[in-house]
Amino acid sequence: MKPKTILLDHGSGGKASRRLTEELILPAFHNPVLARLGDGAVIEAPPGGRLAFSTDTFVVDPIFFPGGDIGDLAVNGTVNDLAMCGARPLGLSVALILEEGFPVADLERILGSMKRAAARAGVPVITGDTKVVPRGAVDKIFINTSGIGTVPEGLCLGPECVRPGDRVILSGNLGDHGVAVLSVREGIAFASEIRSDTVALNGMVERMLAEGPGVRMLRDPTRGGVGTVLNEVALQAGVGVRIRERDLPVNPAVAGACDLLGTDPIYVANEGKLVAFVAPESAERVLRALRSHEHGRNAVLVGEVEAENAGRVFMQTRIGGTRIVDMLTGEQLPRIC
Amino acid sequence: MKPKTILLDHGSGGKASRRLTEELILPAFHNPVLARLGDGAVIEAPPGGRLAFSTDTFVVDPIFFPGGDIGDLAVNGTVNDLAMCGARPLGLSVALILEEGFPVADLERILGSMKRAAARAGVPVITGDTKVVPRGAVDKIFINTSGIGTVPEGLCLGPECVRPGDRVILSGNLGDHGVAVLSVREGIAFASEIRSDTVALNGMVERMLAEGPGVRMLRDPTRGGVGTVLNEVALQAGVGVRIRERDLPVNPAVAGACDLLGTDPIYVANEGKLVAFVAPESAERVLRALRSHEHGRNAVLVGEVEAENAGRVFMQTRIGGTRIVDMLTGEQLPRIC
Repeated sequence: MKPKTILLDHGSGGKASRRLTEELILPAFHNPVLARLGDGAVIEAPPGGRLAFSTDTFVVDPIFFPGGDIGDLAVNGTVNDLAMCGARPLGLSVALILEEGFPVADLERILGSMKRAAARAGVPVITGDTKVVPRGAVDKIFINTSGIGTVPEGLCLGPECVRPGDRVILSGNLGDHGVAVLSVREGIAFASEIRSDTVALNGMVERMLAEGPGVRMLRDPTRGGVGTVLNEVALQAGVGVRIRERDLPVNPAVAGACDLLGTDPIYVANEGKLVAFVAPESAERVLRALRSHEHGRNAVLVGEVEAENAGRVFMQTRIGGTRIVDMLTGEQLPRIC
Repeated sequence: MKPKTILLDHGSGGKASRRLTEELILPAFHNPVLARLGDGAVIEAPPGGRLAFSTDTFVVDPIFFPGGDIGDLAVNGTVNDLAMCGARPLGLSVALILEEGFPVADLERILGSMKRAAARAGVPVITGDTKVVPRGAVDKIFINTSGIGTVPEGLCLGPECVRPGDRVILSGNLGDHGVAVLSVREGIAFASEIRSDTVALNGMVERMLAEGPGVRMLRDPTRGGVGTVLNEVALQAGVGVRIRERDLPVNPAVAGACDLLGTDPIYVANEGKLVAFVAPESAERVLRALRSHEHGRNAVLVGEVEAENAGRVFMQTRIGGTRIVDMLTGEQLPRIC
């Protein structure tokens, strides 16, 4: 008989662990590599090229929120980290940490989201791990996903490729994910429901890169938002970045919620957006490629890279002034992803 | 000024996160791939062969124990999972989950262990992630490590390679890790200190495989111990396994502690041992190779694979009887790794 809650025994490595794996986890991610249940997965390496490798742990609270849950967030998050390296994902690992007493129905729901997210992204889950810890040692469920992918020959993305004059493109609206999570956590109801934007971006990135050269760097603005990503790139590339407030796309409901919460959408986490640094002559083409994809319909040019003010980000405000967009200080939104 | 404890802000993705990464984490694992701090690591793929990919989360309690801590355990554990696939590790990811208020001195100590363990194993940490959760949402520190490696052309290890007549070889004493952890947790003092056997086995596996063919399958008996591993292999390979109790090497102090704790060393976790299934004609050679390595000095032949009793493990007891070694039922040792 299937238990209703997770027991410590499900993490023992013995019979109950095996049943949990075979009855819940394997059916969600079924594929021949995972089904071997070895100490690790072994797959054919695509010939040539380079490997991308990424890891992320998801501790979001609450675990279910409008537009997603910790499961699809964990799949999409690592797929996106690989995509930002320009990589085609080859496979994911899923490592679950479960609290004793966690409802099996919730685990099934989360595994179902992960299954659908992995299928949509076209990335198999090929290895995994499950730990169960006593009540109180973890809050419900944390998920680590890691991923491997291949980077096509000749593709170079990174801060060392960014040049003064490059255009800064944002693939869509700011802050949906962070506000969706906060609205549930803080018990704030908005007139229109704000949904997380969690989605896998590998397909959109492939289309953008297939259209031709000129993309110099990609980042997904998750924790810390677009403001943090721009600051990191400015520091790493040794350039200045200048953006225009009026061009930053924000859903009005999200803007209103941020006002209410005393936060700025530029620092709020996104889970289905990217920031692209693009050679000036390629900017229009990249924008068109992004807008032709369902996840990039609202893509906009938001700014430029400049040689001056290395390591700093400036914003031209709506009223015509200029302000520094600093790196976030102080914990603004804990457990947002 | 460096804070004495981890603050929520260290997980925000902003300035404090960056300082924590730059001042504590990068120095521990310094290498040019990690220092890029991209969304993932990108490395050259070795030409040909296959890729191995593995993940494991470490939730051990206590985090410091005789012979090691959660840090070296996390490095060695994933290196060993790769080694059991026959892979040469290429790189590790390190994903930390920290509880708000965790002492920075403890984190430094753990990162130091990880650094030394990674150096000893010869495997760089090339990507990572750090999350901080509020007090009570996680017990002190959990660590996920994932790893990638290359499997040499032509090498085939796995349950499908195991044949009746194969010999079962154990690389050393049973149960040291589990008893070392339990002794601290339960506050039991033994006459002689029992130390965890946590160690990376990739060097020993390379030597064993370099000596010639005949190794059919490797597993490291961690959670659930040797008893669980043998049962899993018997099930996956569709064979019976017969071992001899008198040949199982157990440190007398560990045997005594297991008596006291009401547990059986065959089910107790090891973190620096392997079980090898080897063609009969290669068994002596493999044993010699293992014994020539510092981590395999006590390697012994403990049993054979048979065609009968598929899926079952039998033990010839010291007094001449035969008993079934069943898969573990019931959570014997939570948070052992």
